[in-house]
Amino acid sequence: MVIQNVAVNRLEQQPLEKQEVEFVERKGLGHPDYIADAISEISSVFLSKEYLDRYGTIMHHNVDKVLVVGGQSKPVFGGGEVIQPIYIIIAGRATTEIKRNNFIEYFPIGPVLLRATKEWIRNNFRFLDPDTHIIVDYKIGKGSADLVDIFERNKKYPASNDTSIGVSYAPLTETERIVLETERYLNSKQFKNVMPAVGEDIKVMGLRRGRRIYLTIAAAIISSFVNDFDEYINIKEELKEKVYKFIEKYTEREVQIFINTGDDLSKRNESGLYLVVTGTSAEHGDDGATGRGNRINGLITPQRPMSLEAAAGKNPINHVGKLYNIVASKIAKRIATIDGVEEVYVKILSQIGRPINNPFIAHASVICDQNVFNNIRYEAENIISEELENVHLIRDDILNGRISLF
Amino acid sequence: MVIQNVAVNRLEQQPLEKQEVEFVERKGLGHPDYIADAISEISSVFLSKEYLDRYGTIMHHNVDKVLVVGGQSKPVFGGGEVIQPIYIIIAGRATTEIKRNNFIEYFPIGPVLLRATKEWIRNNFRFLDPDTHIIVDYKIGKGSADLVDIFERNKKYPASNDTSIGVSYAPLTETERIVLETERYLNSKQFKNVMPAVGEDIKVMGLRRGRRIYLTIAAAIISSFVNDFDEYINIKEELKEKVYKFIEKYTEREVQIFINTGDDLSKRNESGLYLVVTGTSAEHGDDGATGRGNRINGLITPQRPMSLEAAAGKNPINHVGKLYNIVASKIAKRIATIDGVEEVYVKILSQIGRPINNPFIAHASVICDQNVFNNIRYEAENIISEELENVHLIRDDILNGRISLF
Amino acid sequence: MVIQNVAVNRLEQQPLEKQEVEFVERKGLGHPDYIADAISEISSVFLSKEYLDRYGTIMHHNVDKVLVVGGQSKPVFGGGEVIQPIYIIIAGRATTEIKRNNFIEYFPIGPVLLRATKEWIRNNFRFLDPDTHIIVDYKIGKGSADLVDIFERNKKYPASNDTSIGVSYAPLTETERIVLETERYLNSKQFKNVMPAVGEDIKVMGLRRGRRIYLTIAAAIISSFVNDFDEYINIKEELKEKVYKFIEKYTEREVQIFINTGDDLSKRNESGLYLVVTGTSAEHGDDGATGRGNRINGLITPQRPMSLEAAAGKNPINHVGKLYNIVASKIAKRIATIDGVEEVYVKILSQIGRPINNPFIAHASVICDQNVFNNIRYEAENIISEELENVHLIRDDILNGRISLF
Amino acid sequence: MVIQNVAVNRLEQQPLEKQEVEFVERKGLGHPDYIADAISEISSVFLSKEYLDRYGTIMHHNVDKVLVVGGQSKPVFGGGEVIQPIYIIIAGRATTEIKRNNFIEYFPIGPVLLRATKEWIRNNFRFLDPDTHIIVDYKIGKGSADLVDIFERNKKYPASNDTSIGVSYAPLTETERIVLETERYLNSKQFKNVMPAVGEDIKVMGLRRGRRIYLTIAAAIISSFVNDFDEYINIKEELKEKVYKFIEKYTEREVQIFINTGDDLSKRNESGLYLVVTGTSAEHGDDGATGRGNRINGLITPQRPMSLEAAAGKNPINHVGKLYNIVASKIAKRIATIDGVEEVYVKILSQIGRPINNPFIAHASVICDQNVFNNIRYEAENIISEELENVHLIRDDILNGRISLF
Repeated sequence: MVIQNVAVNRLEQQPLEKQEVEFVERKGLGHPDYIADAISEISSVFLSKEYLDRYGTIMHHNVDKVLVVGGQSKPVFGGGEVIQPIYIIIAGRATTEIKRNNFIEYFPIGPVLLRATKEWIRNNFRFLDPDTHIIVDYKIGKGSADLVDIFERNKKYPASNDTSIGVSYAPLTETERIVLETERYLNSKQFKNVMPAVGEDIKVMGLRRGRRIYLTIAAAIISSFVNDFDEYINIKEELKEKVYKFIEKYTEREVQIFINTGDDLSKRNESGLYLVVTGTSAEHGDDGATGRGNRINGLITPQRPMSLEAAAGKNPINHVGKLYNIVASKIAKRIATIDGVEEVYVKILSQIGRPINNPFIAHASVICDQNVFNNIRYEAENIISEELENVHLIRDDILNGRISLF
Repeated sequence: MVIQNVAVNRLEQQPLEKQEVEFVERKGLGHPDYIADAISEISSVFLSKEYLDRYGTIMHHNVDKVLVVGGQSKPVFGGGEVIQPIYIIIAGRATTEIKRNNFIEYFPIGPVLLRATKEWIRNNFRFLDPDTHIIVDYKIGKGSADLVDIFERNKKYPASNDTSIGVSYAPLTETERIVLETERYLNSKQFKNVMPAVGEDIKVMGLRRGRRIYLTIAAAIISSFVNDFDEYINIKEELKEKVYKFIEKYTEREVQIFINTGDDLSKRNESGLYLVVTGTSAEHGDDGATGRGNRINGLITPQRPMSLEAAAGKNPINHVGKLYNIVASKIAKRIATIDGVEEVYVKILSQIGRPINNPFIAHASVICDQNVFNNIRYEAENIISEELENVHLIRDDILNGRISLF
Repeated sequence: MVIQNVAVNRLEQQPLEKQEVEFVERKGLGHPDYIADAISEISSVFLSKEYLDRYGTIMHHNVDKVLVVGGQSKPVFGGGEVIQPIYIIIAGRATTEIKRNNFIEYFPIGPVLLRATKEWIRNNFRFLDPDTHIIVDYKIGKGSADLVDIFERNKKYPASNDTSIGVSYAPLTETERIVLETERYLNSKQFKNVMPAVGEDIKVMGLRRGRRIYLTIAAAIISSFVNDFDEYINIKEELKEKVYKFIEKYTEREVQIFINTGDDLSKRNESGLYLVVTGTSAEHGDDGATGRGNRINGLITPQRPMSLEAAAGKNPINHVGKLYNIVASKIAKRIATIDGVEEVYVKILSQIGRPINNPFIAHASVICDQNVFNNIRYEAENIISEELENVHLIRDDILNGRISLF
Repeated sequence: MVIQNVAVNRLEQQPLEKQEVEFVERKGLGHPDYIADAISEISSVFLSKEYLDRYGTIMHHNVDKVLVVGGQSKPVFGGGEVIQPIYIIIAGRATTEIKRNNFIEYFPIGPVLLRATKEWIRNNFRFLDPDTHIIVDYKIGKGSADLVDIFERNKKYPASNDTSIGVSYAPLTETERIVLETERYLNSKQFKNVMPAVGEDIKVMGLRRGRRIYLTIAAAIISSFVNDFDEYINIKEELKEKVYKFIEKYTEREVQIFINTGDDLSKRNESGLYLVVTGTSAEHGDDGATGRGNRINGLITPQRPMSLEAAAGKNPINHVGKLYNIVASKIAKRIATIDGVEEVYVKILSQIGRPINNPFIAHASVICDQNVFNNIRYEAENIISEELENVHLIRDDILNGRISLF
């Protein structure tokens, strides 16, 4: 099939790495917005797999609206407890009635969502107990489908569900890589073994001014590991040292690190410190929602093209708000490897009803020398066409966990 | 007071107006994400006013997590009804216990939120009945305050509540203006008088390729005004004509308009058309959440710097996720009026704990000729300093409805 | 049709009127349990009428599980306000999908329940605002029906839905009549005109010891009508006088009346008094549930046979927990008018699956002289048979509001 | 202390055992109303113990309003699954803020309620999984207390919280004993080992007409143990045989047993049978509520004096709706052992504000020969006085599980 509406332009612009100022943010594993994204996505994955098991096809669903309502907790040095559980509501749509051989089968939407959520929490948190620290509820609009009728879904390229835009860029700047890797490091198994007091709720804000990088890190500290005020101060110091050490391999620039700048150290008790019982600030008043955190490259990058679509929780069949962000990312990464490309920005616009491999426009802007542009353009167009033809393969990567989305 | 950390750079970049391809989106009044934003913001405004009335000061609150869970409806030609109400949950935090003269006073958080929401719906929708089409609930974490103790809040420049980024730019491109104004026109009182069949849920997606502009409009049509299939087709035609006419004054470019491209016209009955009973697609399965729609200039602009902070629902005292987006917008608009400025991008980064007039950095990138840059820089720095000094005045503009946020 | 299993016995027992001690209770209109019963029943009535309108038959439903969760309020002399709304959840089952001519029609269960509840509150309370003082939600299990298939429901005598017992007795004792009529008097329009300060939440507990009757009345007083402590005391006195006067016509016995014995008068401020803002104690922490208040004669009578079935909210077609209590009541009242009958107790036991006019047993125990029993027995058996044959007519009385159930 | 208002009368009445007709019902462990009662009570017990642990005293609480909203399930021969979880909401009041040494401590109401509920389910059901078959939520009105101020609660005899009636009687009739013991037998560990297919949801309805006893038993059968229609029939037969055998020791009367009379055997498939996946009919549309099932002797006895108070979930300190039912039961059992007593009915009426050992009246009606009444009266009055003096000891029996309430 001939892919239409592919366009590649040369962008006259300074690459971000060469600009004077740069802002990058990452919300880590235990951040309430991350939790919301993760529960949206694991819900979609569990639903997709269960649909495949039962019906051989992934039924329509969209669970990209998870709300995490913060609870109440009381961290105290050497202990602490949850006072009021975190409340999580999973909202969206799903096919719940399937007609097969003239009988209607009911899909166990509730048990699947509850299992997905609790399993994800058990696998990702050390001190957050799904039994007593969390209430999980759901509000799912119910749909029906006829197994003989779902021709559309089984098409190689089903129709786009919406008119929306996917965007991406490549490569990451040094500051972007540092922000991304720092959070991953702090939430790695290895690091938790070394510094178990550092909770899962970590936010990294990077600022680069010229040759200096400033990292402002908010890291929830688990109160049961901290026996007194001095120990808290020591943990922050140790944490700072470890981060300095870790990022040495990523940069030659001067780096300055701030940890928990919101602390009020004057009282020398728990009240002014960033302490948590369970690892996440959702335990005490911080709410989260799907689509409010990292973009699919794991970062929030105000100076970069960004999509406002939540990729998490959308279905991997025809939800272009998910697929086109992923395709754009794959395209950008490949174009960035072409000789002479300094930076590339990719945008794909769907129109509701068009086949997913045939967007309204797929467009790449390349920063490069004028004289190499023609070659790049030719290669880039081929890459775009190829990736659009392969858009239907993305679902497998998603179900097998080969694509991270936040 | 000397404002620190103000920086202005020259950006070597093509203005968006001159680039080959441009994408712009606006979610209109009846879009579920817009509804969520609006209820967040009206809730904050009602809370702020009630706090002011009772205590002379705006107490801490944050209601930037509204979830709109779609209901179920049955639009039919000439009628239709809601089958299952829309469910709206307002999540966040607020001060509910205030100590005054040794007594604790309880703030009526629930009644205030319910009144705000229902009033907003009654004022903005013609066919959406808060009594029977909607269930409003809330989950608000409760806080307490001592009136003698809230010195911090009454400071001219209280401390930032978070480490976050506000961004803006100016001016709007022609395409951006068209997308913005088209939705406003279609949701204006005058237009509703002329074409009452056009519902409040309108989404406008603009694409510019070179000299051509493509507008893809999704407009919910109210079923009780449509007696049959042919009338629906006529309404779409009339709507298209009216938009063509309306945007004539905004552009000389060639424009192509698409209305409800998702329609399946083959069945000639209600099932394939974009019909609604109440004006919003939230009535049938579309969910919405605060912060998932328009940025504070009313647009979604993937090629422009964007903040992911939801301005709606945050408090106007020290929530930099709200204030800094507004300040950035005011700064950008003013800098854009300086002679020689083609485009300006503004970013302001807070650090939790710093006074709100003293961000970690406030930065403007200006597209202009090299030779006028020095003058511009000087003026721009002054503008930034001035607007930061006036950051505390924004709250009044917000409470008086002089600032639109989505 | 011959009615089987009808039995009438003579009971050797002192009528309650002649016993030494007697206990009777009535929970009035504004009591949270009454509110729950009323919302259950009005919901069933609205559903039944809507089903009849649309389909010509009353579809299966059961909404006999309403939970009223108390809110929080702050009554103050001369004013007061609701701090946290009352939360009402309507639980049960209903037919929501009806197949007609091969199409499935969806029944608007939510809008009907919301309208029923809000209308009932607006009609029965003066100061309770459904918009801001109450949140109404529902959890209704959905069922489906095929219009060509509902032969069973359209039978004259459909099958019983459950194995359960209906009971009743007649006549009321003097004390029972006094308790019942006192509450009705205090919640009558006329009385509210005279003493508007007396709220809807009234509970009357009657105790008779020999020739003395003690009435303990809890009457919520509406704070906006009470300007100070002394006025509260005066209102209680005036209320007491009015009740003394009212019950003169019902008894020659000595009567002693207690009003709001829980009051703590020592503080002379609002805190120790029974003050409310809206008329019901549900505004501040008192919860209610269907089936926890008055039996269908409007009373709680521990010394009398009572059914634990909630009549309110059950459907009037084949829910014997509702129908058999009503039939028993009609039978008891008629038998009580037979010459020589001092008291009669009626019990009817269904067995799931039997036609509703053919219970497992319908039994009356009559207190009377041995020598008149044979005549009474014959008449009583006829009455029982007749009322069982007419069991299918009860539904009309229910829908038209001719039968009160609590 | 002299106990006032104790009265004992002789009742001229046939004991129930000698009357012609008798009705008795018991809702078993897996019945939704039983589940609601049990969760109310276990919640109160866990709260009480946690309060004692932390503060040395049981704080005010009342959780006597649990609502169990039925889910949806699909039992199939040899398997089956839950489609939609059961939703359980625990409503009531509790002390959540405790002032100690000028600091406010927050009580973890949510985690305690969640743990209590899930533990009870895990301990009492074999196939009901709290993780995926149930959603537990709560709506608890919050109260505060000052540890130096709770003198009232620490009084030996605190003030009654309400004006309400406790009632009881003794002894049980043969039919009552049979109904009670049959359910206990069918839900015993031993029986489940022998017939694991018999679920926890068992309801026994007893009718005695003269010398014949009829038991109508509804017993949920667990689908995974039933491979086909014939096996279901065999299980019912085996169950019937086992019950016939079991009750031989309780009666010489003729007994007739009915099992699952609602079954429609004509279809020979799952649809007409009483099959469940988890053991309780709450899995499919049957709702339950606290206080709607058995009275504190484990039975529903329409011909006997009954209280409508829910004992379950009330606090054991001053909630007379709980305490007076228990005291009445203890008094009745003791009086029934006095020589010459055929039956005894006990009623205790509180008045809000009076000390719990000093009710408005405590009254026993004794069926006995006139000539032994004076002796009985004297003994009975002593028993009443003694048990009222010991009313404060009941709390320990409750916390230690020595008193069953439903």
